[in-house]
Amino acid sequence: MNKSFIHENFLLQNDQAQKLYHDYASDLPIIDFHCHLDPDAIVKDTQFQNLSKIWLHGDHYKWRAMRTCGVPERLITGDASDEEKFKAWASIVPETLKNPLYHWTHLELKTYFGIDDVLLNKKSAQGIWEHSNKLLSQPNFSTRSLLHRMQVKVVCTTDDPTDSLDMHRKYQQENDTHFVLFPTFRPDKAMQVEQHKDFLDYVKKLESASDTDISTFKDFIDALQSRHDYFGQLGCRASDHGIEEPYAHPFNQQQLHDIFAKAIQGLDISTDEVMAFKTGMMHMFAVMDHEKGWAFQMHIGAMRNNNKRKFNELGPDTGFDSIGDFQIAKPLSSFLNQLDEDDTLPRVIIYNLNPRDNALISTMTGNFQNGEIAGKVQHGPGWWFLDQKEGMEEQLQTLSNMSCLSHFVGMVTDSRSFLSYPRHDYYRRILCNMLGNDIEQGIIPEDYELVGELIENVCYKNALKYFKYNRLPAEMDKTPIF
Amino acid sequence: MNKSFIHENFLLQNDQAQKLYHDYASDLPIIDFHCHLDPDAIVKDTQFQNLSKIWLHGDHYKWRAMRTCGVPERLITGDASDEEKFKAWASIVPETLKNPLYHWTHLELKTYFGIDDVLLNKKSAQGIWEHSNKLLSQPNFSTRSLLHRMQVKVVCTTDDPTDSLDMHRKYQQENDTHFVLFPTFRPDKAMQVEQHKDFLDYVKKLESASDTDISTFKDFIDALQSRHDYFGQLGCRASDHGIEEPYAHPFNQQQLHDIFAKAIQGLDISTDEVMAFKTGMMHMFAVMDHEKGWAFQMHIGAMRNNNKRKFNELGPDTGFDSIGDFQIAKPLSSFLNQLDEDDTLPRVIIYNLNPRDNALISTMTGNFQNGEIAGKVQHGPGWWFLDQKEGMEEQLQTLSNMSCLSHFVGMVTDSRSFLSYPRHDYYRRILCNMLGNDIEQGIIPEDYELVGELIENVCYKNALKYFKYNRLPAEMDKTPIF
Amino acid sequence: MNKSFIHENFLLQNDQAQKLYHDYASDLPIIDFHCHLDPDAIVKDTQFQNLSKIWLHGDHYKWRAMRTCGVPERLITGDASDEEKFKAWASIVPETLKNPLYHWTHLELKTYFGIDDVLLNKKSAQGIWEHSNKLLSQPNFSTRSLLHRMQVKVVCTTDDPTDSLDMHRKYQQENDTHFVLFPTFRPDKAMQVEQHKDFLDYVKKLESASDTDISTFKDFIDALQSRHDYFGQLGCRASDHGIEEPYAHPFNQQQLHDIFAKAIQGLDISTDEVMAFKTGMMHMFAVMDHEKGWAFQMHIGAMRNNNKRKFNELGPDTGFDSIGDFQIAKPLSSFLNQLDEDDTLPRVIIYNLNPRDNALISTMTGNFQNGEIAGKVQHGPGWWFLDQKEGMEEQLQTLSNMSCLSHFVGMVTDSRSFLSYPRHDYYRRILCNMLGNDIEQGIIPEDYELVGELIENVCYKNALKYFKYNRLPAEMDKTPIF
Repeated sequence: MNKSFIHENFLLQNDQAQKLYHDYASDLPIIDFHCHLDPDAIVKDTQFQNLSKIWLHGDHYKWRAMRTCGVPERLITGDASDEEKFKAWASIVPETLKNPLYHWTHLELKTYFGIDDVLLNKKSAQGIWEHSNKLLSQPNFSTRSLLHRMQVKVVCTTDDPTDSLDMHRKYQQENDTHFVLFPTFRPDKAMQVEQHKDFLDYVKKLESASDTDISTFKDFIDALQSRHDYFGQLGCRASDHGIEEPYAHPFNQQQLHDIFAKAIQGLDISTDEVMAFKTGMMHMFAVMDHEKGWAFQMHIGAMRNNNKRKFNELGPDTGFDSIGDFQIAKPLSSFLNQLDEDDTLPRVIIYNLNPRDNALISTMTGNFQNGEIAGKVQHGPGWWFLDQKEGMEEQLQTLSNMSCLSHFVGMVTDSRSFLSYPRHDYYRRILCNMLGNDIEQGIIPEDYELVGELIENVCYKNALKYFKYNRLPAEMDKTPIF
Repeated sequence: MNKSFIHENFLLQNDQAQKLYHDYASDLPIIDFHCHLDPDAIVKDTQFQNLSKIWLHGDHYKWRAMRTCGVPERLITGDASDEEKFKAWASIVPETLKNPLYHWTHLELKTYFGIDDVLLNKKSAQGIWEHSNKLLSQPNFSTRSLLHRMQVKVVCTTDDPTDSLDMHRKYQQENDTHFVLFPTFRPDKAMQVEQHKDFLDYVKKLESASDTDISTFKDFIDALQSRHDYFGQLGCRASDHGIEEPYAHPFNQQQLHDIFAKAIQGLDISTDEVMAFKTGMMHMFAVMDHEKGWAFQMHIGAMRNNNKRKFNELGPDTGFDSIGDFQIAKPLSSFLNQLDEDDTLPRVIIYNLNPRDNALISTMTGNFQNGEIAGKVQHGPGWWFLDQKEGMEEQLQTLSNMSCLSHFVGMVTDSRSFLSYPRHDYYRRILCNMLGNDIEQGIIPEDYELVGELIENVCYKNALKYFKYNRLPAEMDKTPIF
Repeated sequence: MNKSFIHENFLLQNDQAQKLYHDYASDLPIIDFHCHLDPDAIVKDTQFQNLSKIWLHGDHYKWRAMRTCGVPERLITGDASDEEKFKAWASIVPETLKNPLYHWTHLELKTYFGIDDVLLNKKSAQGIWEHSNKLLSQPNFSTRSLLHRMQVKVVCTTDDPTDSLDMHRKYQQENDTHFVLFPTFRPDKAMQVEQHKDFLDYVKKLESASDTDISTFKDFIDALQSRHDYFGQLGCRASDHGIEEPYAHPFNQQQLHDIFAKAIQGLDISTDEVMAFKTGMMHMFAVMDHEKGWAFQMHIGAMRNNNKRKFNELGPDTGFDSIGDFQIAKPLSSFLNQLDEDDTLPRVIIYNLNPRDNALISTMTGNFQNGEIAGKVQHGPGWWFLDQKEGMEEQLQTLSNMSCLSHFVGMVTDSRSFLSYPRHDYYRRILCNMLGNDIEQGIIPEDYELVGELIENVCYKNALKYFKYNRLPAEMDKTPIF
C-alpha cells in the first residue's frame, strides 16, 4: 500500500463529495441522541487498562464475527487473557474484509490512536497492542476526553425506568462545559407481563425506584409516570422501545387493570391479553411523551437470543440476534392513528431492522405529519445490521425518495463503546459521497449552498431542533445556531 | 450554477446514453394507457387561471411533502389564496431535494414554461408565479394543447362503471386529430360489499347508469356487463383494480347470489363472505376482459387513508396513504391459475406498490405466458411511491433479470395533472441512461440498432401492440408503425 | 461491433478488477457442490447429436423465456424438429437482452464453440447451428470432456434416496483422473406424507431400494438411514432439501409413528399432522447429516407448478415456478435452535429464493456459528432467479455486510446442462469486478495479496475445506492446497 487505507478522502469518490465533506460536514459537532454508553464510566472519567478492555469487552459485533471465523469461545468471552483475546481478534480482522467491522476497526485505530501505516492482522497485532495500551493510560484517553476530542456535545444514554439515574444527576451537578448527558426512558421490561417471575421482580424494583406501593394497575402507571417525570427533570427528551413488531390490539383501561391484577397474582395470561397489555402500555408511554414534547423511538424487527444454548451460557446481547420478517404495516398504522385521533401523537422515530421495510416505513411517516413541526414522524437511520455503508445508503435513498431528507434527524452511534464516535464521521462521508455523486450525475444541482445546508441540517442541526434539549454545554453558547 | 439543472442531457450520464436518448427515445409519441385526467376538462379544453390551479390543486404528492416540511394545512388545502399556497409550496421546494418532486417540479417548469435559469424557491417564487400565470392564459396552455405539445396520442382515463362517459362520447364525436381518449373500467366500488350503506347507494347508481332494475346478483352482474359493453363501445381496452391484496377465496355462483342478497337486505356479512364476494367479482371482471381481449390491470398493495382524523376532514386521496406488506404470492398465483385453467385469463398487468415484491411479481408473470401474444402477463411500471428514478430502475432491472424487458409495455403517468407528461420523458431518460451504462460496462453489446429497437418498443410500440386500440388519431395514419 | 461481446475482460470494469480476475480467479479449478447433472450421461460419456439436444432439451429457463416472447409451445416442448426449436430459440435471443440468458448464451457459445464474432439471432442461427453441430460430434464434446475442459474437479449430483446410485458406483470404479462424482441425498419425497398415493408408492420404492420391509415409522427411518449410509459410502457429503418454508411444528416420535401409520393405511392426515411430520423428518435428516459431518442444504421459497394446466400437460420443472413470500425468520430460527440445543446441528447452507430475505438469512447464519469450523452455517449463493449479476451482487454485498465473505463457500451451477460451467467464470468475473470497484473507491485496501486470497478462498478453497470430500481426482494430488 502506498497510501493509508483511512485517509482524508476515505469514501469520498469525487471532487464534489470531497468539497461537501470538508466544507460542510467534517467539523460539525455531534449530537448522539441514542446510545448505550455507561453513565458511570463517564462520571468516573474512566481510563481503560488495555485495548481489549475498551474495544472487545462487551462488543457483541466483534464476538459474532469471531465465531463466524471459527474462533473458539474461550478467546471471545472465555477465560483467555486480554492479550490473547486481542490477538484472536486481530488475527481474524483480515477475514472481515468488506464487513463494516473492517472499516470501523481501522477508522478507530486511526482516529484515536493515529495508526494508519498498517492494517490490523496477526503480524501487526503485537505492535498495535503495545502502542495503544501505552496511549490508553494518558489523560486524553479518559472517557470524557474521548468524547470531547470527537466534538460530542450531547449524549443520550438508554435507561430503564427503575434506574436511579444517580450518575446522570452527579454529572449534571458538575456542569462539564464540553458535553451534556441525558437519560432516555426505555421501559421494555414494564411491558413483559408474560414473563411471570421477571415481571413481578420488575414491579418490585419499580416500587423501590419510585418509592411507592404498587398493588393495582393504576399504581403501576403512577409509578412509571413518576419515573417519567424524574427522567424529564434530568433533561430526558425521548423514550425508546425495542419491539419485535408493532402492537395494535384492542384494549381498554378496565382490561389492562384486570390483566395486571392477574399478573400480580401469578395467574395465567392469554396471548390476547398479553397483546392487549403491550398495546395499552405502548399507547400510554406515547401519551406521556406527547405531554412532555418528547420523541417516542421505536426499534422494530429484531429477533433476539435465537441460540438458547448460548443464551443460557452467556445471557442476552452476546451476538445471537438476527433480523425478523414481521408484518408491520397495518398494526403500525393503527397504533399511530389511534394516538393521532386523540391528538396525543408525540414526535415519533421508527427504526426498522429489516431493510426490506425501508419503503414501508418511509411512506408510513408521511401519514402522520402535520404543520406543528417539520419531520414530526421520522424514519430512523440504519440501525445495527444496517449500520454500514449500503444500509445507510439504502435508508437515505428511500427516505429521500419517499419522504424528505432535509428534515432527517440523522445518525446515532447506538453503541456501548467509547470508541464508536467515528461512526458519525463515517456516516457524514457516506452522505457527502452520495450527494457528491448526485451532483456529478446531475441528479441534484451543483449548488453548494443548497446542498451544504442540507448536510449541516442532517448531520447536526435537525437533531437539535427536533429534541429541544433544555440545556446545552457552555462552550456551545458562543455559537448559537438558531 | 453555470448550467441549467434541466438540460438536454439531464440524467444521461455517458455518451452512449445520450446517443440512445436523442436518436431513439426523445421524439417518440406518448401512449398514456393509465391516468386519472378529468375528461370534462379535455372536452371543454379548459384553461387554468393560475399556477396553483393547474399545479397544486388536487396534487396530494405536493400536499404530503408540504406537511412533512411543517407547512400548516391552511396553506395546503385550506382557505389561503392561490398565491399564498403557491408561495408556501415554492418555499419548501428546496427542502424536497433528492425527492422526485424536485425533479418533476423543474422538469415541468422547463418543459411547459421554459424556465431553466432559476430553481424554484422562496426568492424566485414571485417571478415564476407571474411568468407562468401570464403563459397559462395563452391558447397553447389549454388542456388539449398541453397534451398535443407533448405528442400524446392516446389517453386512457380511469372511470367507474356508473360514470355516464358522456364526456368521452362527446370528445369522440369531435374527431380531434391529435389524440384519442378512452375510458378504463374501474369497478372497485362494486366489490365493497362490506360497506353496507355505500354499497347500497352504489347499486342504486348502477341501476340508474345501466337503466335496469337490480334485485338479484344476476341483475347486478348483468348491469355491470352492460356497462362493460358500453365502455367497450367507447374504445375501452382495459379494466383497472385497486386492491390491498390479491383475493383467492373459494366461491361459487350460489354463494355470491346469497351474499349479494344479504347485502341488499342490509344483513351482516362475515369476513369469509366478503372475501368470497371480492374473489368472485374479480374473477368475473377478468372473464369479461378476456372475452373482449382487454387488459386486466391490478394495482396491489396500497394501504389507504391511514390518518382517520384527516380522512374525516379532507376525504380520500389527500396524501395519507402508504405502502403495505401483504402476503401476495399464493393468492395471486391461485387467482391467475383459476382463470388460466378455464382458459379465461385475459392480458394482465400487475403493479406492485411495495418494491420488495418486484422479484415475486416479475417471476409470477412468467407462470402464465403463452404463445398467443408476447408479454401477455406484465409486471407494471413503478407506480406512485415507486414513480422515481430508483423505483423505476429497480423495476426495470428486476423485470430484465426475471422476465423480458423487450416486451414491457412501459410507462404511464397515473396522474391527475395536465402537467405530468414530462414523466414520460423522465422515464425515457432513465431507461436510456441505464442501457447506456450497460453498454459502457459491456453488460450489453454496443449495438445501437438492437438496443434502439428495444427502447422504441418499451417507450411506445409495445403499448400499441398490447392494447390494440380500435382507433388512433388521424395524424398517426401517415406513419403506420406496424 | 468492433469488439467481441464476450472478451477477456467481459464484466471487468476497471484495471483492479482485471488484475484480480486474471491473477487470482481465472485459472482456479471448479468444485461444483450442487448440480442436477445426469450421472448416466457421465458414465456413458455421452455425445450430443445437435445443439438443441445439449442446449434446449430440459432447459426450462429457455422455455420460459420463449413463452414470454410469444413462441408457440410446439416450438418449445412440442413435436417440432430440433432444428426448428433451435431457430425459434435463436430468433428470440435478441429479445432476452439484459436477461442472464443473453449472457449465458453468448458465454457458452464462446467458451465451448469459440463463437465470438456474431451474436445469436435469426440471421446467425443457421451458421451457428451447423458450426456447433459439427463440433458436437468431436471427442472433446463428450460429457466428460466438457467437464474436464472447464477444470471441474468435483461434481455433486442431486439424488433421491431410492436411486440405486449404480452410475455413481460405476464411475467411481473407473477412477477417472480428472474429476470425482458424488451423489447428494435429496429426500423431499419422503416428507410428502400428504400426497397419499404418491407417498405410498414412494414407500414401496424405498422398500425396494433399501431391500427392507417397511411397516412402521421405525422401519421407514431405518430404510432411509441405510440409504443415507450407502450415499455416504459413495462419497456423499451433503443432503439437500427443497421446501417452500422452514418447518418448526411441535412433534415427538410417538406422533410421527402415528402419522406414518395413518398414511400407510390411507387415512386422512390433518394439516397440523402434516407439518409435524415434515418438521420431524427435516430434524432427523439434519441429525443424520450431523452424525456424518455432512452439510445440510435448504433451498427455501420456491412456489412450484403454479400453472395447473401446463403441469397436467408437461409435468414439473417445465418453467412455471416463481418466488414465494413466506414468513421464515421464526420457524427457521426455531428449527436450527432445536438442533443446536441437542448439539446435533450439522453444517448448514441456506439458499433463499426471494432476494428480499437476503438480510434475514445472512444474519440468521450468525446465530449458530461456533468455534469448530469457520462459516459453519452459510448463506448460499444466488440461486435460480437470483443466478444473475444483480442477484449475485446483492447476495455478496449482504453476506459481506452481515456475515463474513472470506468464509463463503461460493458458487454452484445448480444446472441440468453440461454447458453451464461458464457460470463459474461468470461468477468469478462478477466477484472480481465488485472487489476491483471496491479497491478503486477505497472501500477495501489496494492489497492484492489480501484480496486475492479472499478470491481464491471463495472461488475454490472454501468449498474443499467445508465439504471434506474423502477422495479427490488423481491429477489434483500433485498440487495439494492444504
